[in-house]
Formats: sequence, C-alpha cells, structure tokens
Amino acid sequence: MTNRSPLPADPQPAASAPNPLIAPKGLKGLVVADTELGDVRGLEGFYHYRQYSAPDLARTRTFEDVWYLFVEGTLPSLDERARFTRETAALRELPPSLLELLPAIARSDTVPLAGLRTALSQLAALEDMPPAYDADAATLRANTLRLSAAVPVLIAALHRYSVGKTPIAPRADLATAANYLFMVDGREPDPERARAIEQYLILTIDHGFNASTFTARVVTSTGADVGSAVVAALGSLSGPLHGGAPSRALDTLDAIGTPENTEPWVRHAIGSGERIMGFGHPVYRTADPRSVLLHEIAESLGGPLVDFAGQVEVTVEKVLAELKPGRELHTNVEYYAGVVMELCGLPRTLFTPTFAASRVIGWCAQILEQARDTAIIRPSARYVGPPPPQPVPAPHY
Amino acid sequence: MTNRSPLPADPQPAASAPNPLIAPKGLKGLVVADTELGDVRGLEGFYHYRQYSAPDLARTRTFEDVWYLFVEGTLPSLDERARFTRETAALRELPPSLLELLPAIARSDTVPLAGLRTALSQLAALEDMPPAYDADAATLRANTLRLSAAVPVLIAALHRYSVGKTPIAPRADLATAANYLFMVDGREPDPERARAIEQYLILTIDHGFNASTFTARVVTSTGADVGSAVVAALGSLSGPLHGGAPSRALDTLDAIGTPENTEPWVRHAIGSGERIMGFGHPVYRTADPRSVLLHEIAESLGGPLVDFAGQVEVTVEKVLAELKPGRELHTNVEYYAGVVMELCGLPRTLFTPTFAASRVIGWCAQILEQARDTAIIRPSARYVGPPPPQPVPAPHY
Repeated sequence: MTNRSPLPADPQPAASAPNPLIAPKGLKGLVVADTELGDVRGLEGFYHYRQYSAPDLARTRTFEDVWYLFVEGTLPSLDERARFTRETAALRELPPSLLELLPAIARSDTVPLAGLRTALSQLAALEDMPPAYDADAATLRANTLRLSAAVPVLIAALHRYSVGKTPIAPRADLATAANYLFMVDGREPDPERARAIEQYLILTIDHGFNASTFTARVVTSTGADVGSAVVAALGSLSGPLHGGAPSRALDTLDAIGTPENTEPWVRHAIGSGERIMGFGHPVYRTADPRSVLLHEIAESLGGPLVDFAGQVEVTVEKVLAELKPGRELHTNVEYYAGVVMELCGLPRTLFTPTFAASRVIGWCAQILEQARDTAIIRPSARYVGPPPPQPVPAPHY
Repeated sequence: MTNRSPLPADPQPAASAPNPLIAPKGLKGLVVADTELGDVRGLEGFYHYRQYSAPDLARTRTFEDVWYLFVEGTLPSLDERARFTRETAALRELPPSLLELLPAIARSDTVPLAGLRTALSQLAALEDMPPAYDADAATLRANTLRLSAAVPVLIAALHRYSVGKTPIAPRADLATAANYLFMVDGREPDPERARAIEQYLILTIDHGFNASTFTARVVTSTGADVGSAVVAALGSLSGPLHGGAPSRALDTLDAIGTPENTEPWVRHAIGSGERIMGFGHPVYRTADPRSVLLHEIAESLGGPLVDFAGQVEVTVEKVLAELKPGRELHTNVEYYAGVVMELCGLPRTLFTPTFAASRVIGWCAQILEQARDTAIIRPSARYVGPPPPQPVPAPHY
C-alpha cells in the first residue's frame, strides 16, 4: 500500500477567501503586458509601430520594409530590403499536398476565414512547427515568416476555387500587395492600385492589444506552436465585433443609396437603436488616423463612390453630434478601407481575409515577443452560482 | 471636396496619460469574468462543476450526465439521460467529405493535436457554423454538441491512420468512454477499463479559467463562431505548459527505472534546476483532488506500474519537502492520469488528445456562457520601446 495523499478537507465557505482582484469589464484599459512593438493613443488619435508613426510608415515605406521592422526591430537598408523581399517571396510557394486539399477546403468556405483557418492549420502541421516552449528563436522566426507569406496565397487560391476558377501561382518578382491582387484576378495591377492596397496593408498590421493579438499571446503563453497561435488569432479576427465587418460599412452605403437619403436613413437607424457600421471605435476618441489616410488614398483613386462616401460621412457625423452629443463617433478603419478595397477591385468576401493578410504580420511579431516570456496567461473567474458542495442526487426518476 | 477630418495633432508625451491599471503577471489571481459553471479553490484542494463537487460527480455519475449538467444546468433524470445519450451518440457520425480528408490530415500529424485542430476547423466550416454574434441559443447549443461529439471520433480515426490502420466506425450503443476505447483498438473494453477512462474524462471537463478556457472565451467575445473558439482553445491546450505534457510524467517514471534509483535521480534533477514533470500546480497548494481520485482508480486497476508510481510519488514528495521546504509540491492531474491511461491501453501519443476529448465539453459550456455577454475582451499593453514618433528615415544605403 502506498502512502496516499489524504483527501482534501471539506471546503470552507468561499467568503473566507481573500478579496480577489477584479478586472475591468472586458479587461478594458488594463495593462496585461509590456511591449516594444507599438501602441495606440486613443485620446490623441495616434498609433505607432516601434518608434515610428504608423501612417508615416504607410506614406513612405514598402510593406516589406514594415514587415522587416516588426520582425527585426529596425527598418531595413536597401540591401536588407532586397534580401528580405527575396526570402519572403520564396516562401509563397505552398507544399503540393496542401494545394491538393484546397478545393475540398474552399468548397466548404461559406463562412469567411473558415477555409483559411483550416488551410493554415494544415500548413503548420505539414511544417512540423514545434512548441514555442521547445523552439529556438531562428525556428520561431522561420515559422512566422512561412505562415505570413502563405496567407495571401491561400486567400487568393481559396477565393478562386470558391468562384469556380483555378488558382494563379504567385509571382516572386512582384511585391506582396501587387502579387496578392495578381493572384486574385490574374491581371498585374496598375501601380496606383497596388500602392493603395499596400498602404492599407501597412496601416492594419498591428493596433494595440486587440482581441486577436491578445488571443495569439494567450496561446503562445502555454508554449504552443506558432501555427496554433495564428489559427487561434484568425478565429478572433473572424468575429463581427473585431475584423468580421469591413464589408458592412459598404453595405450601409448601399442601403442609403443616394446622398439625400442619408439624413432620414441615419435618423431612423439611430432612433431604432441600430449601430451605424463604420463609425465609432473602442479606443479612438478622435478621428481614427487609419481612416484619415485611407480617405486620402480613396480620394486619390477617385470616382463617385468616394464622393458619396464623403457626403455620407459628413451627414452621419452631423446627425451623430446632434443625437449623441459628446460621444465623438467618427469613421473607423472599416469605412474607407472598404471604399479603397472596392476601388481596387477586391470582392467584398475578401475584405476580412485581406485584413488577415496584414494583421498576421502583427500577430507573428507579438508571438515572437510573447515567446520570450515564460509566464502562462491564466486569469481567474468569480463563481456566482449556488453554493457548493451540494450532495449529488441519484438519477432515480 | 468633402469635409475631411483633420489630421490628429502631434502626440503628447506618453507620460501625460493617466496612470493605467496594471494586471498581475500572467493575470494570475485576477477575476476576469463571472461564471456559473464552477470554480477551483486551490488552498482547499477543492473544485466543483456548478454546485457539485467534481470528484463526487466522477464517483457517482456517467460522463453523459455531467456533460448534460454543463449544457443544461441541471443533472438529468433517467429519461433526460437516455434522450441526451441518444442525441449525442447520433452526432458521432461525420460527414463523408470530412472522412475523405482524414488520411491527408493524419499523415501530417507529427505534432499531437495539430491534426485534430485541422479536422475540427474543417468540420465547423462544413457545418456552416454562424458567428455567435448572429446565432440563436439553439444553434449555438447544436454547434457545441456537434463538435464535442466529434472530437473522440476524430482522435481515434486520426490515430489509426497515423499507425497505418483504417478507422473504426463509432457505435451508438456504447457510452462516450467505451466507444472511444472501442474506436481506438477495435475491441469492446471491459467495464472496469471503460469506467476508469470515463472517470478520467469527468474529472478533466473543466478547471477554472485555465489558458484554453480563457482562449475560447476571448475568441467568443469577438462574436466569432463556436468552431473558431474551440479550434483556438485546442491550440492553447497543445502548449507544454498547459495540456501538452501528460505523457511526460510517465517518461519520468521510465527514466527513473527502478524504485531505488528514485532518490538519486530526483536529487540530481532538482540540483540541475529541472522541473519534475507531474508535480506541482499553479493553483493547488494541497494534493490535487483529481490526482487523489485518479490514484484510487489506478490502484483499483492494479499492477506493477501503479506500485512503482506510488513509490516514486512518496520519494519525490519527501525529497521536495527537504530541498524545497514550504513549496507544497504534490502530484498534479498529469501524474496518475498518465498511469490510468497507460493501464487502459491508450498509447502515449493519445494522452493529450484524450484530455481534449473531455475538456471540449468545458470549453463549449464556457463558450455558451460567454456568448450571452456582449463585451469584447480587449486589454491594453504598456509600450516600453524608444519614444515615438521618430522621423522615418529614407532607405538610402
């Protein structure tokens, strides 16, 4: 007979426990980690990647430059840019065994992002990505680059299967944004369109401890592999309260239809308690700086949709200021992002996946940062049901 | 020209921001939600599901009874048990299009759980699981039951492909635990083995706000579908600091080899700063109540492995008490769980997946509870890099 541990004593009433720390609802405003990757200052309408203003980077740098900044910590020299661009372009080629599965995955893809979730999960498994707990920094870096480079390729291939076409192979001579547009419709995009999407991608790489970024960090804190963390983050991004809604702002423009219908439509929507998609942000109390630059980009592309979107913006802000004074509801990133993507020829079903194509760069940098920490993220909850232990009844009736 | 929002003003120094709330490291001890599902009282060595002691449920109830308790909020009557058992047994049948993909998914499954992650992602997509944000309660309940019922079937099928065999179809006349063992090796298990695994499964359904449960709730808080939340939780579970290690405790027993080698082995391990797998828990300061009952179950199964495990336990606790006084390091759930699973004939590669087969019930109940809340979980981080904004240099060298 072994020296068995005694059964724990009967529990004491929970009231005897010390007073727990209670987090604010939704963890809002609560600092859960230190980061060198960037920050959002909601009161100032400012956000940055490392020490640089993110809109300044989008105005002056390539997507690969900013990707490099997240991975390596500095902006690249011209040589480093060339090497990094070659390295990541080579990672666009997918394993043949994964390509063979894509038709079956795409056929089921009626929920945006679900097919991408399955394909990325399979790619991570094919690559034998090790637990972050056991992996060295070079392996983790390679795993993150592999998944980041694969996302636009998988999105385009799954999209083409879902509309009855065959995928278009990636071109290593095109930059990420131009290659993405090329894989979607088979035409090499004009430089203005390619640059507009590139700037959209740069602007949406990272944005504080949003829910998908936090998800990636929680998963990584268990020592899990990069694939598990990215797949989990993608799940969070698919939620309508996070990334799942950028096409809804355009749907709102469609529903309004004409400039003169804007004011009655908005008054009716607010009177019915509806949320106006594309307006308001949980952090910004000023104009969303992403929206400001995307509006400029949309205007440089031009056309009646941009003019209409601008008219609706003015009217909505005026009515909101009247009916919800002090709320500071302005266009968020979704509003002009939708306009820019529409003008660049991306179908609406690709809006959220395209967001994933940039945000995966941010998730991966956050994963690499979290992997250098050793503490598992494991909060508590407060039990609010009937007091235990009640005797377990026998199933007698 | 539209009335464009002005560019935000230049940012002020971060020091002017109000003092933020700082969470404890790893969110340890921080209450992030209210729950009616249960709790862990680490100081007392007690945990409960709703108002019932979890070990009491494991001693007296079936797995389906406790599953029902999580889904419906009460223990079932005999009629309700029969109906729920029929309902969930029918959900073990998988779509043929998913079955066709399993060989390709299993072939890549060198990382435990990676294949299950891919297969569950595809199943959720095939079922067109809607965003929780848009779904009614009946749909969410159906989605959670579907995934929960599928997990043991997928694990067994992927396992059999990975060892060069073909899957065995589930049997609706067997309870969850017996059917699982049957699907793994094709033999109907004797009642003692089936009950041992059933009790293991009951004991591991839920356990406070562990990292995978928290992951599922973060993903659900964005309004994402049940599939995204379960797939994300599975990623967290795969981490070695969470569920990814139950076979490592047995590996330790193998490394020790003989009872007389225990003390020198443990002294050497502790002297080298190594962690002894199977001992210690972030919450319990007493014996882990799961370990206590699993030890009893292991002894009722009997055999030299149980005796050896008991001898090692005594010696490790003695040496730990001497070398790490006051640390209260006892066996955790992994230690005797590994022994029980080994005695029931489960290969070690199935230990973590079998944990997933019970924990998915807990995740799903947590998902249903979270889906009734409307607040997105979005914490903050503290930027600790060089102060922004620095001017973006041109890439000139």
